Amino acid sequence: MTRRTPEFSPLEGRELEAYLGEVRGLVLDEIDRIIPSGTRYEEQLYRPMRAYPFRHAKGMRPALAVAVSRALGGRIEAILPSAAVLELYHNAFLVHDDVEDGSWSRRGLPTLHTEIGTPAAINVGDAMLALCLRPLLDNTKLVGLGPALHVLASIADMARETAEGQALELSWIRHADYDLRDADYIRMVHQKTTWYTFLTPIRIGCVLGGASAELECKLRRWGTLIGAAFQIQDDVLNLEAEEQEYGKEIDGDLWEGKHTLILVHALRLASATERAHALKVLAKPRPPTPAEATEATKSLDEIQAIRALIERTKSIDYARAAARRRVEAAAATLERTLAELGASVHRDFLAGLTTYVLGRSR
Amino acid sequence: MTRRTPEFSPLEGRELEAYLGEVRGLVLDEIDRIIPSGTRYEEQLYRPMRAYPFRHAKGMRPALAVAVSRALGGRIEAILPSAAVLELYHNAFLVHDDVEDGSWSRRGLPTLHTEIGTPAAINVGDAMLALCLRPLLDNTKLVGLGPALHVLASIADMARETAEGQALELSWIRHADYDLRDADYIRMVHQKTTWYTFLTPIRIGCVLGGASAELECKLRRWGTLIGAAFQIQDDVLNLEAEEQEYGKEIDGDLWEGKHTLILVHALRLASATERAHALKVLAKPRPPTPAEATEATKSLDEIQAIRALIERTKSIDYARAAARRRVEAAAATLERTLAELGASVHRDFLAGLTTYVLGRSR
Repeated sequence: MTRRTPEFSPLEGRELEAYLGEVRGLVLDEIDRIIPSGTRYEEQLYRPMRAYPFRHAKGMRPALAVAVSRALGGRIEAILPSAAVLELYHNAFLVHDDVEDGSWSRRGLPTLHTEIGTPAAINVGDAMLALCLRPLLDNTKLVGLGPALHVLASIADMARETAEGQALELSWIRHADYDLRDADYIRMVHQKTTWYTFLTPIRIGCVLGGASAELECKLRRWGTLIGAAFQIQDDVLNLEAEEQEYGKEIDGDLWEGKHTLILVHALRLASATERAHALKVLAKPRPPTPAEATEATKSLDEIQAIRALIERTKSIDYARAAARRRVEAAAATLERTLAELGASVHRDFLAGLTTYVLGRSR
Repeated sequence: MTRRTPEFSPLEGRELEAYLGEVRGLVLDEIDRIIPSGTRYEEQLYRPMRAYPFRHAKGMRPALAVAVSRALGGRIEAILPSAAVLELYHNAFLVHDDVEDGSWSRRGLPTLHTEIGTPAAINVGDAMLALCLRPLLDNTKLVGLGPALHVLASIADMARETAEGQALELSWIRHADYDLRDADYIRMVHQKTTWYTFLTPIRIGCVLGGASAELECKLRRWGTLIGAAFQIQDDVLNLEAEEQEYGKEIDGDLWEGKHTLILVHALRLASATERAHALKVLAKPRPPTPAEATEATKSLDEIQAIRALIERTKSIDYARAAARRRVEAAAATLERTLAELGASVHRDFLAGLTTYVLGRSR
């Protein structure tokens, strides 16, 4: 008997967003159960802790874990606490990242540390990480010992990889080191973003759905490609924020001196003088707000000069093409992999996710 | 047959320090195994991560866990990874605390964030927390599943309690709220310090040594008393730092506006004018260094005025007496509890620890 390849129709647009929205509702209920309420720490700790998770967001990480596990035949109840933990970890990273990057806004509202102060925000992030441990332990009763420990190990690996990637990027920023090859950037993104955004949700979905090692391996290959494309596209969106209404700081990545494929490409094509000038600007700290810029900080004029360089070198197009190549390779990989699974809306969500990652720009 | 009460001779001075030193050597070997070496993240992440754990320190938390477990007949190999995790968590808290409090020095050297920058220091703390998960998982093979999960649950509770206590104190500082009863302070200390310094090492030692629930309960009562005494004594030491050679910032707690039994007592006995003036000073941020003080920050003169108030109200004596009362009650509790255990150097270490906590001032 030859293997049948079932047809599948990738979710698109509103259908895909409806799937995301449905999972997000369940995950937020779960997060609401994990974060204590009615305690004497409400004002100092738990209300600020709810801020980021409950702001407008796609919830792609938990949805990916849920879709992988469900496409394999796993139960929604079995994956939900782990999916919620993924989302909580993500939000704890965001709280600490925003302090580390000195960011002003997150999801269309002021960053947490600008609202409650840096000390309390660092502590909120730590407390979120602490609260993740209990549901992971309770998993032993919910999904059995082996899978529960496997999920815990995945989270441990994820937290280490993310911190290593972050360390690399922070060190590049601190030493104003922009002398990078594309491969350096891609490797950093693999650790800092792909690991917790794609690889860990895939791994946890596979553990709780009972995937074969071979299938998991193929899904991880897809995740690696799509993860890089996702981050490159995120960098593109950041520089196109002027055209958007909410949620992004205009040119936030340039103010931060963040290392992107775009900036690295532009500096590579710049003249020696342009490059030297840009590096001097990038090495300066960012002002508390653009209006408070001084000689010692980056200024709006300087940021706009780097923008002009990026436009002249067509670096955004270069990055877009790099993302597109990866999305195409990812789609080809995924199509063969998904053909091994039975038809389901979960499989169609995964099939749709590949193009959705690029489509976000519209 | 009546129960025999074996004699015991509490360790003192050099004997006690030798015990601490021996455990510390083993724990540092273990930490050295937990922190990756020879990776490409050495400079950005793992070298800075080793800074605090390998600076001069007593290592009281791991020693307490080891002593409890060994006094009950547990093996040293079984407790060491958990003891190392306690020490790593402690150091991760210190790294984040120092950022949150804007501290200048730690263990006689500059704080980590003043050396490598605040962003990298926050990330080092996060990575330390991440690295703790793996040895706790490996515990399943080392000590068996039940005890390993119990240890993990203890760490989860500890991380939450510590963050809650920290949230309380940070909120008091942010709102310059010094209108506290002694009981408020004691309760905050119970969560912020006692939980991870005494209660969790005791709990883990009991789990891995196989203590009865009754014995654990008695040891925790001792830990609660000694924990409060330990923190009160720490506050006393901070204000007496002038007499010490290294390791403490002079009046660091006053610069931070930290809530201590001493300060709360002094403000309670102050005249309305003194109190209003002190509160105005305490509400101001601390300057980057004392020499950089401005109108908008605390200044050396202002700190010295609060010192003078503390001396006039004899608040250090008041705090010392509060610590002594707790140490006496703790000693009485412990003597009855330890009598249930067989004679060992580990039991004698526990017996000596009670007075050592107060004796540190000398």
